[in-house]
Amino acid sequence: METRTVAVNQYILAEKKRRAVEQRDNFTQQNTFVVNLVSSPGAGKTSLLQATARFWKDQFRVAVLVGDLATDRDAERLRPYVPVEQLTTGGACHLELSLVQQGLSRLPRQTYDFLFIENIGNLVCPASHDLGEHIRVVFLSTTEGDDKPGKYPKMFRTSQALVITKSDLLPYVPFSVEAAIADARLIQPEIHPVLTSATKDEGIKDWCRYLENAREATLRAASQTGAG
Amino acid sequence: METRTVAVNQYILAEKKRRAVEQRDNFTQQNTFVVNLVSSPGAGKTSLLQATARFWKDQFRVAVLVGDLATDRDAERLRPYVPVEQLTTGGACHLELSLVQQGLSRLPRQTYDFLFIENIGNLVCPASHDLGEHIRVVFLSTTEGDDKPGKYPKMFRTSQALVITKSDLLPYVPFSVEAAIADARLIQPEIHPVLTSATKDEGIKDWCRYLENAREATLRAASQTGAG
Repeated sequence: METRTVAVNQYILAEKKRRAVEQRDNFTQQNTFVVNLVSSPGAGKTSLLQATARFWKDQFRVAVLVGDLATDRDAERLRPYVPVEQLTTGGACHLELSLVQQGLSRLPRQTYDFLFIENIGNLVCPASHDLGEHIRVVFLSTTEGDDKPGKYPKMFRTSQALVITKSDLLPYVPFSVEAAIADARLIQPEIHPVLTSATKDEGIKDWCRYLENAREATLRAASQTGAG
Repeated sequence: METRTVAVNQYILAEKKRRAVEQRDNFTQQNTFVVNLVSSPGAGKTSLLQATARFWKDQFRVAVLVGDLATDRDAERLRPYVPVEQLTTGGACHLELSLVQQGLSRLPRQTYDFLFIENIGNLVCPASHDLGEHIRVVFLSTTEGDDKPGKYPKMFRTSQALVITKSDLLPYVPFSVEAAIADARLIQPEIHPVLTSATKDEGIKDWCRYLENAREATLRAASQTGAG
């Protein structure tokens, strides 16, 4: 009985992984680079997406899927800038691929260069769910403390980039940018750090260039292997 | 099959509730007032506990159980002030009563006036787990934004007090204390708000007086009903 339960769980996990890989391949074939944004509540994901959309203006076609337990407050903040769909989990602590796919079907039908998935504000649960993204980016605000990577290791281990937000507050908080990056690199040595402030428009260019380069590298690799 | 699964789940939930109620009665009989602290990562639970221990000095016997996914960083910060035990969930997004009871058995054997349970930094999962506490207190830092109560409604609905932390940063962030309290009261009209700054020692006296009054009221009610 226990053996059978384990086998079924393994099957479900493998099937979920297969669907995420398939979705990622679909995105790649459409030249859509998909970024899964994860963080604590209030780390500044929505504000940085607003700044990103302003920086790129008409340079790239961008869409956003916004996850929340309840309310559409973040979606409303983004609607003036980009096509956006709200994903409401009704209490669940992370987004699932199926919910992302429902949101995709409601977005205006066109080709996007970038799709951002703003996950639930939670440094734990979203770490275990592949949404078909190309990269996962963990946000850490300077007000949360530089000790967080080691305390939430799975989230930092499974992320390719670390966006440190609210750099404008550095003079007022006990936060060492170097210590935070060093702590994250103990867990994920290749994590790419970017220091930003959405309110002061600091680091937005670095962040956007990083995304543009990551997109190009992904599409180039796909075309070389014939997957694109 | 489905009916049986639902029935078993209902039984497990009822059994968990029964154990939490029993644990709460035990605490009450020992005159130990138990406070479950919940918040986002980095909202300032540990810093406020340090300030609380300093304020009370030898006035009350205090102990702390600190939950984390990994590391004992918070426990180390509290050890100079009070008896503290680390609860490591190994990745789980919330504390369970059984883990709390294991921590209790490792604390120095004496009577405590206050026991604080510092939950995992997470505004979602801990809302669904009764740890046998007398009150649940949700912390919200001024840097997280005043829109959080509506976005994480279950956590605010199940809390008796709202501690707004980092009031020293109010001049630098777009946060309205009134708006945050109003948003929380839409969900939980009786929530008790306290504005604090651990670094500037603001509101610590209000917070401690609130806890002292809540403890007295609980013990008085228990003695009147004969439960104490």
